[in-house]
Amino acid sequence: MSQRDLVIPLLIDGKEDNGSGTFDVISAKTGKPCWKAATASTKDAIRAVKAAENAFLSWSKTKPAEKQRILFKVAELLESRISEYGEIMQMEMGGDKRPVQGWVLPNSVSYLRDIASHIPVITGSVPTSGDEGMLHMHWACELQPLQLQLFSKARNYHQDVTGHWEAGLSSGVLNIIYCKSSDSEEVVNAMIKHPAVRKVNFTGSTDVGRKVARTCGEFLKPCLMELGGKNSAIVLADADLQDAARECIIGAALHSGQICMSTDRIIVHADIAEDFLQILKSTLLTLVSLAPDPPYLVTAASKSRLQELVSAALADGASCLVGGTEQLRKTEKD
Amino acid sequence: MSQRDLVIPLLIDGKEDNGSGTFDVISAKTGKPCWKAATASTKDAIRAVKAAENAFLSWSKTKPAEKQRILFKVAELLESRISEYGEIMQMEMGGDKRPVQGWVLPNSVSYLRDIASHIPVITGSVPTSGDEGMLHMHWACELQPLQLQLFSKARNYHQDVTGHWEAGLSSGVLNIIYCKSSDSEEVVNAMIKHPAVRKVNFTGSTDVGRKVARTCGEFLKPCLMELGGKNSAIVLADADLQDAARECIIGAALHSGQICMSTDRIIVHADIAEDFLQILKSTLLTLVSLAPDPPYLVTAASKSRLQELVSAALADGASCLVGGTEQLRKTEKD
Repeated sequence: MSQRDLVIPLLIDGKEDNGSGTFDVISAKTGKPCWKAATASTKDAIRAVKAAENAFLSWSKTKPAEKQRILFKVAELLESRISEYGEIMQMEMGGDKRPVQGWVLPNSVSYLRDIASHIPVITGSVPTSGDEGMLHMHWACELQPLQLQLFSKARNYHQDVTGHWEAGLSSGVLNIIYCKSSDSEEVVNAMIKHPAVRKVNFTGSTDVGRKVARTCGEFLKPCLMELGGKNSAIVLADADLQDAARECIIGAALHSGQICMSTDRIIVHADIAEDFLQILKSTLLTLVSLAPDPPYLVTAASKSRLQELVSAALADGASCLVGGTEQLRKTEKD
Repeated sequence: MSQRDLVIPLLIDGKEDNGSGTFDVISAKTGKPCWKAATASTKDAIRAVKAAENAFLSWSKTKPAEKQRILFKVAELLESRISEYGEIMQMEMGGDKRPVQGWVLPNSVSYLRDIASHIPVITGSVPTSGDEGMLHMHWACELQPLQLQLFSKARNYHQDVTGHWEAGLSSGVLNIIYCKSSDSEEVVNAMIKHPAVRKVNFTGSTDVGRKVARTCGEFLKPCLMELGGKNSAIVLADADLQDAARECIIGAALHSGQICMSTDRIIVHADIAEDFLQILKSTLLTLVSLAPDPPYLVTAASKSRLQELVSAALADGASCLVGGTEQLRKTEKD
């Protein structure tokens, strides 16, 4: 079977599941289908909800020490697969695989271990999120609730969850389903409405978040929305400008800037603004020259949106430090 | 001008306001129009939002001591008007005016004084609510946010707010609007959408709460919903049965049971169940004989709903301790 014909199954109640058909997963790297994923109907999604509901009976009685053991084991398994996951994440989601392998995934391993070590004293949590490699934070921070994840991307989550099972997590405690985007509103709403779902945690775009929160409101389910932010870096007059420039670029460009906490805006003290701009430019050119692959955006639509933002800013009188719309076009892959 | 022609104005930016027409306020006591209220259009509602937005600039700089002074003064004014408000509340909302005058409104006075005394140490709050006489709790607990209230009843709020102004509250800090129910969805949604509205606190029915929370979700505004509860009283085997019976009846019947925390369900230890039922019955008959007026429900629809609940329970095999659907019919006023 070629990579192209591979179908990533749903993961329901500890079993791989074919769902109700398949959809193509489009690679951010090549712009072409890289593999397929099973797609969940409303009925499949409700099966997953019921699996989680059943699993809660025994999971809620699982001792902290056992939960801790599972998380440490998941961290170990994830650590052993960083290289493989990095390739998958680059193919599916874009971004440069080296920071994914060197920062995003190692961070997930650290989160898992950190949270595992706190289990005996955890009384409540506010999950945070980074990119898609950080499923672990959500899961590990919320040890009580049953997890049910819905994603449009597939393969790295599939790998993740099989790792959780290998670590000894009981069937049904963590279920992962995918669905094609044309069905997602119906499928998500059916899950939110189900009486077993007591709280909803959504990470994603503001547009989709509005729809999810609207349905949560209608069914009086509390929801935690982790949507796009507007994250400012502030550079003060006494900053080390080399360090500041490097950190600003990493903050903005890591995983192609496709992280909810990516740096969107840099506010610089007037006294050092000119110097900082020059250092920012030279640091950026150096870092770009060291990166063998340009980073990719997750979809062609994301790229068009960025091109429009840059064009609109230039039309409004912004000046371009490096690159610009032309540069964006030069790196076009799809 | 007769009572029947009285129009309760909106209260926007420290001024009485005629809004965009009037609607009849139907008396719970007589089932007939008792007076009119001004009705707010979307445009009027947005004027109120903007008044609140402007008022925030100075209100946010008002010292705690001044806020405390205003609340103590509001408490004093409310206390001097308990008799008058009790009559208005009975006319508009039903309930027996004696517990309103003897408990609901005195409680509001106590809340105001209690909260005022805590102002120097208040860092956050979860507002609670009782019936409509407890506007004060919401307002006083949330000293920071600007208040904007939407009600279908009118006169007692009008009295309340004029009391706040007399106490020295600046224009626009507390605005009160009414609207006819056919416009309420549009008017409420327009207010929720407005960027100046940062949080929504809703007290009312579950059905309306779902609609409000749905719009809050869509516009990503946090909301606090205080909807109907299912409140149980538990009577243990060693309880003083006379006391327990009396408190259960007061909990269930105060303000005609039209309070979100009214006792809905009494769970009694098997050993004393028979005795408790007899004492409950005799206590109820005694209390009813002492009440010159039967209590009223706020609308004819509320009464029909209760009649249906009683009929359905009897049809399902419940037995009736006192009264029943026939009793409900006997006290019919509309």
